[in-house]
Amino acid sequence: MIITVNQKKLKSGLSAVERIVSRNVTLPILQNIVLKTENGRLKLSSTNLEIGINFWLGAKIDEEGEVAVPAKIFSDFISNVNDEKITISSKENVIGINSENYKTKIIGFSAKDFPIIPKSKESSFFNILSQEMLSIFTGVVDSASISEARPELSGVLVSFNSDKIEGAATDSFRLAEKNVLRKTGVAEQSVIIPRSTVLELVRIFSNYEGEISLAISENQIFFATEDLEVVSRLIDGSYPDYKKVIPDKFISKVLVSKSELENNVRLASIFSSNISDIKIKAEENNFKVTAKNTDKGEISSKMQAFLKNEPFEVSVNYRYLLDGLKVIPTDRVSIEFTGEGNPLVLKPEEGKDFIYIIMPLRN
Amino acid sequence: MIITVNQKKLKSGLSAVERIVSRNVTLPILQNIVLKTENGRLKLSSTNLEIGINFWLGAKIDEEGEVAVPAKIFSDFISNVNDEKITISSKENVIGINSENYKTKIIGFSAKDFPIIPKSKESSFFNILSQEMLSIFTGVVDSASISEARPELSGVLVSFNSDKIEGAATDSFRLAEKNVLRKTGVAEQSVIIPRSTVLELVRIFSNYEGEISLAISENQIFFATEDLEVVSRLIDGSYPDYKKVIPDKFISKVLVSKSELENNVRLASIFSSNISDIKIKAEENNFKVTAKNTDKGEISSKMQAFLKNEPFEVSVNYRYLLDGLKVIPTDRVSIEFTGEGNPLVLKPEEGKDFIYIIMPLRN
Repeated sequence: MIITVNQKKLKSGLSAVERIVSRNVTLPILQNIVLKTENGRLKLSSTNLEIGINFWLGAKIDEEGEVAVPAKIFSDFISNVNDEKITISSKENVIGINSENYKTKIIGFSAKDFPIIPKSKESSFFNILSQEMLSIFTGVVDSASISEARPELSGVLVSFNSDKIEGAATDSFRLAEKNVLRKTGVAEQSVIIPRSTVLELVRIFSNYEGEISLAISENQIFFATEDLEVVSRLIDGSYPDYKKVIPDKFISKVLVSKSELENNVRLASIFSSNISDIKIKAEENNFKVTAKNTDKGEISSKMQAFLKNEPFEVSVNYRYLLDGLKVIPTDRVSIEFTGEGNPLVLKPEEGKDFIYIIMPLRN
Repeated sequence: MIITVNQKKLKSGLSAVERIVSRNVTLPILQNIVLKTENGRLKLSSTNLEIGINFWLGAKIDEEGEVAVPAKIFSDFISNVNDEKITISSKENVIGINSENYKTKIIGFSAKDFPIIPKSKESSFFNILSQEMLSIFTGVVDSASISEARPELSGVLVSFNSDKIEGAATDSFRLAEKNVLRKTGVAEQSVIIPRSTVLELVRIFSNYEGEISLAISENQIFFATEDLEVVSRLIDGSYPDYKKVIPDKFISKVLVSKSELENNVRLASIFSSNISDIKIKAEENNFKVTAKNTDKGEISSKMQAFLKNEPFEVSVNYRYLLDGLKVIPTDRVSIEFTGEGNPLVLKPEEGKDFIYIIMPLRN
């Protein structure tokens, strides 16, 4: 292989593929990135066996070829080199990198030993705007379970309907659901995308503004743009019928400032006990957050509130409350009380496209 | 104790005293900050037994008193509370903190159990500008030894002369010396200040622009401003006569861009072996940095240089070279070769107030 590429473009490509490179010691080839000439471009590939990424960039190709190069060394070097034009060659798996002021050799491996990253055979399923996809993912991903005890809960459920896309996640203590209205024109189907994949997609596409083309095959999902393709395994299993947990009416409802509530919950958390409990209390014009810990002390804060119906008081895990507030996009948040021992419902002040539910703690 | 203070002032005081609070489990009282009314002000005190800090702030005092309050809880609360006026009271070691929107109780301890932080009995030794003191400390502190094997090397030597103040530090692999010319009017004396104290002083005084008053007693040193006093133990022992290691002439000398050299050394470090060795080579118009590692590969970079006398080549630990370049304040750095196996000398392009010496590695 002999190619010439632009340093900045190569660096941006590396930042896309490099982060999933694992320090896998049982399969050390996964610590590499594969460079391969393909249809007049250079393809960078990486995988951790759960997720695979291909990135293509323009290159002047003088000799076709492919080679696996240790990701950390290659990326450390390319990210910090100041020369604009970089010539990369490979011979017997030694990668030569030359530019105006640098001559470098990196000891690499045969690309033949690298796992094949599947390419989507299906035609594109449909296109979604990057922002729409990310709004679903960021809204719900923190509610997915970190534990693998129930594998289906460790992912984000994405349901495609003819007129909307729905994302949902729950770890059985709290639940988030986010909708995007959109004529998809496809038959109903649902997939469970691993939490780690969702986090990676949020990172990769956070600065991307165009459309992303989706395709789904048996147990894989593909996300593609012109110069990037991400493929991930899907989680097998049937997702619980979470819709029936979402209360359809409330007893009382209170409207408060989101940022003030976040601050007061954080302050109360200082005095919470080892089950992370704090108490919220909605009164006529006041919203109180309290916490008490026999070793540390206690706190009571108050803020302005607009209450509909009866006062109420609930104990909740402050972490779940903060996670929910974080993804509420409006200045004020609506909190609905649905009865003793029943879920607490958080919603943006306006808009019905997001709902966040917390199971209360026993008083 | 019943006092009222301004939240912002209290927060800034806490940031000064809080960081040295240790998680000492054998002496848990050290996890506290002592609040004490003193001459119409509130005094905050903390210590880790090596360094002690007192900070005074204005307060409306309704009842004198003192109490020890858990540093983390108190600081987490005060830093995030939004109310301006904070009333603090203590009764039987329970601290009540009340403001417009918050009522808080923190379980504290008796201030009587807290170690006494010594106050300087000596009259002020002399005053030094904060920037002058920090330029000495930041110039040399990274060269002090992290190991306690030779306690005197784990500190920074500060020598006071009638017309200058000299700081020096070495871990026997490299050495840094920084001078500040200043009529001190004092008799010659030297102290060894612990590395950790120096780092703490740099942090505490980094945003302070006025004069700092110094005092030295038997085995302690005091740094005071109007509202802050820092006391530290001094290291006992006699510092090696480092001056005789500093070469007084050179064989060759090369002038290069500091930032370019830093970048090329960092790039070479990717290919250094486990003894962190890289090679520098000064030629007529070129300065080359190379490194080679049989497992990873090799690199050679070149940059423009102005050489006086003969070409030379030296192997050095790249970490020591980077540490030295970091504290060179000029755009270009002068590197002096003083003979095979002899120290390499780094100096700012102009100015004779700083010198940095590295022992070469055997080729």
